[in-house]
Amino acid sequence: MTRQIKLAVIPGDGIGPEVIAEANKVLDAVLVGSDVVIKRSHFSLGAARYLETGDTLTDEDLAAIRANDVILLGAVGGVPGDPRLANATIERGLLLKLRFELDHYANVRPSILLPGETSPLTAPGTVDFVVVREGTEGPYVGNGGAIRAGTPHEIANEVSINTAHGVERVVRYAFEVAQARPAKKLTLVHKTNVLVYAGALWQRHVDAIAAEFPEVSVDYLHVDAATIFLVTNPARFDVIVTDNLFGDILTDLAGAISGGIGLAASGNINPSGEFPSMFEPVHGSAPDIAGEQKADPSAAILSVALMLDHLGLPEQATRIREAVAQDVATRGSAPAGALSTRTSDVGDRIVQRLSR
Amino acid sequence: MTRQIKLAVIPGDGIGPEVIAEANKVLDAVLVGSDVVIKRSHFSLGAARYLETGDTLTDEDLAAIRANDVILLGAVGGVPGDPRLANATIERGLLLKLRFELDHYANVRPSILLPGETSPLTAPGTVDFVVVREGTEGPYVGNGGAIRAGTPHEIANEVSINTAHGVERVVRYAFEVAQARPAKKLTLVHKTNVLVYAGALWQRHVDAIAAEFPEVSVDYLHVDAATIFLVTNPARFDVIVTDNLFGDILTDLAGAISGGIGLAASGNINPSGEFPSMFEPVHGSAPDIAGEQKADPSAAILSVALMLDHLGLPEQATRIREAVAQDVATRGSAPAGALSTRTSDVGDRIVQRLSR
Ligand SMILES: CC(C)[C@H](C(=O)O)[C@@H](O)C(=O)O
Ligand SMILES: CC(C)[C@H](C(=O)O)[C@@H](O)C(=O)O
Repeated sequence: MTRQIKLAVIPGDGIGPEVIAEANKVLDAVLVGSDVVIKRSHFSLGAARYLETGDTLTDEDLAAIRANDVILLGAVGGVPGDPRLANATIERGLLLKLRFELDHYANVRPSILLPGETSPLTAPGTVDFVVVREGTEGPYVGNGGAIRAGTPHEIANEVSINTAHGVERVVRYAFEVAQARPAKKLTLVHKTNVLVYAGALWQRHVDAIAAEFPEVSVDYLHVDAATIFLVTNPARFDVIVTDNLFGDILTDLAGAISGGIGLAASGNINPSGEFPSMFEPVHGSAPDIAGEQKADPSAAILSVALMLDHLGLPEQATRIREAVAQDVATRGSAPAGALSTRTSDVGDRIVQRLSR
Repeated sequence: MTRQIKLAVIPGDGIGPEVIAEANKVLDAVLVGSDVVIKRSHFSLGAARYLETGDTLTDEDLAAIRANDVILLGAVGGVPGDPRLANATIERGLLLKLRFELDHYANVRPSILLPGETSPLTAPGTVDFVVVREGTEGPYVGNGGAIRAGTPHEIANEVSINTAHGVERVVRYAFEVAQARPAKKLTLVHKTNVLVYAGALWQRHVDAIAAEFPEVSVDYLHVDAATIFLVTNPARFDVIVTDNLFGDILTDLAGAISGGIGLAASGNINPSGEFPSMFEPVHGSAPDIAGEQKADPSAAILSVALMLDHLGLPEQATRIREAVAQDVATRGSAPAGALSTRTSDVGDRIVQRLSR
């Protein structure tokens, strides 16, 4: 008996197609000999498609994507400053729209400093933590507006919306992640001393749910202090739970201290299973190096590992992680972010390790 | 003829009084032989006073403070988690209230890595930049609220308010700061691809005012990307202009990479001169080490230098900066943030250098 998994693939723009090619290679390799069959549907979405057709994500696209079990996304976005892409058309009309429409409320972003990786920190110590970033609320909801725009009397507001429904579920998910890890430690990051209403909501739910997870130790940091600890003592972190905007900021910083954004994977998870979850590298489309086989596909490949975990295939996920770790350990000291070999070489090497 | 300067001193809580004692010592020493006379008024404000009297900042306090030319503040805030200080009473009722009531719209926070200082970064390169953080708008305005609080239907909103008036003036101030520096480079940091209304307002004002400062080169970074560059290439920064919340986050990170928060000074400036500007170390009240003479007073002392610049006494400001730099260079390698000598020893040493 075979198990069929319907996978929507969105290679996207820039380096997206290159890193997704390697991710797909690795996915196929790790499933050789298993009873799992991947049925892929490809979606041409992104800045290129938008500039051609004017569409970012149509209702038909969305319906077709929804019919899958999981989604693998490379990167979307055109050349920075392209006036035809003003107003963050791609980010809001495609990437964020997918996260919102598919109710990806738990954005899971692990940070691990692997042996052989170079951190910009002198003494990083053990870096092995996960940020659980809320994905459907906060200042990302798009409920802002401006009056008298372009005049000396302009007022532009941005509204951060936080609900008990939205906070409760992501905090619970973060506790479950913490409970499953050896250190079992959860840190709420917010700015409760300034954003007192949203902060109180977050703190109250963390306090309440903590009672259900007596083994998990809990603490709190203001977001400004959290950035200090990320560079002075990242080992203090195990699981961080935080809102959409703080999570955006902290995960880029976390990626930077743990060997660079070339290894940062992420899952946009809909834990209820109502909609397909989406897995993507944290990095962007990097149009400046697109097509040059210079991008590190490791983040995309590690996103496949997160996807396999989500699909209940932890053995395969672990094999991918081990192969990537081995590859990183033997890469030699390329300057941070740079790749001394071609994008496809990295994929080939990892495939080779998997088939040993 | 002597020039009298009326100085409001707010030592505050925790280590505040200790570091302010040294700052005052140094201020007196640097003015010996000048025609400047400091007339101090002391204000007992902070968590201790609030717990005793229930007052954070009365109308009378505010009027008395307003009657001064400048303000020197140590640090305010009680023991974290003290239930009597819930709802950020001190932060909002005192510190932020001072910034808002005195229209401190330019919060200026320089970051310099001095010779002898230890950065957590392996290869920090030259760290010498200034963050100009907006101080009177953004998500700090306190225009949030919650409905159905404590129920499963709770909705908690936070509103970031951004006005042409508020953005224009701080952007202009930042351009002036950039114009006066050798590198003449200004980086706007925001999140224009998500916070599109506020982002557009900021970007438009930067673009418009740039035309008046043809010598200043201008670029833009998303806040998440800015945190990456702060740890991988801080030398790329000269002047950063950003909103209240992003500035809060970036300046703590900037403090951490440039030798620690023990050296981070700040000015809450009202450039129009309508109200007294306020100078304070970026660090908090650190009640855990209060009274132990363990706090580094350098940030408070460097805040005095910023104050002297603001008062049109740049020669004295430079002398203080040089004395602090010399002291740091000869301190030997104490672990980051720790002080190998007593708080008052640092002040004494700097006074001694000033009188040579
Ligand atoms: C592209 C942008 C909208 C996105 C975000 O802010 O979430 C990105 O920075 C990320 O972290 O995935
Ligand atoms: C204490 C707090 C309200 C304050 C802020 O957020 O501005 C502090 O973090 C700072 O940076 O001065």
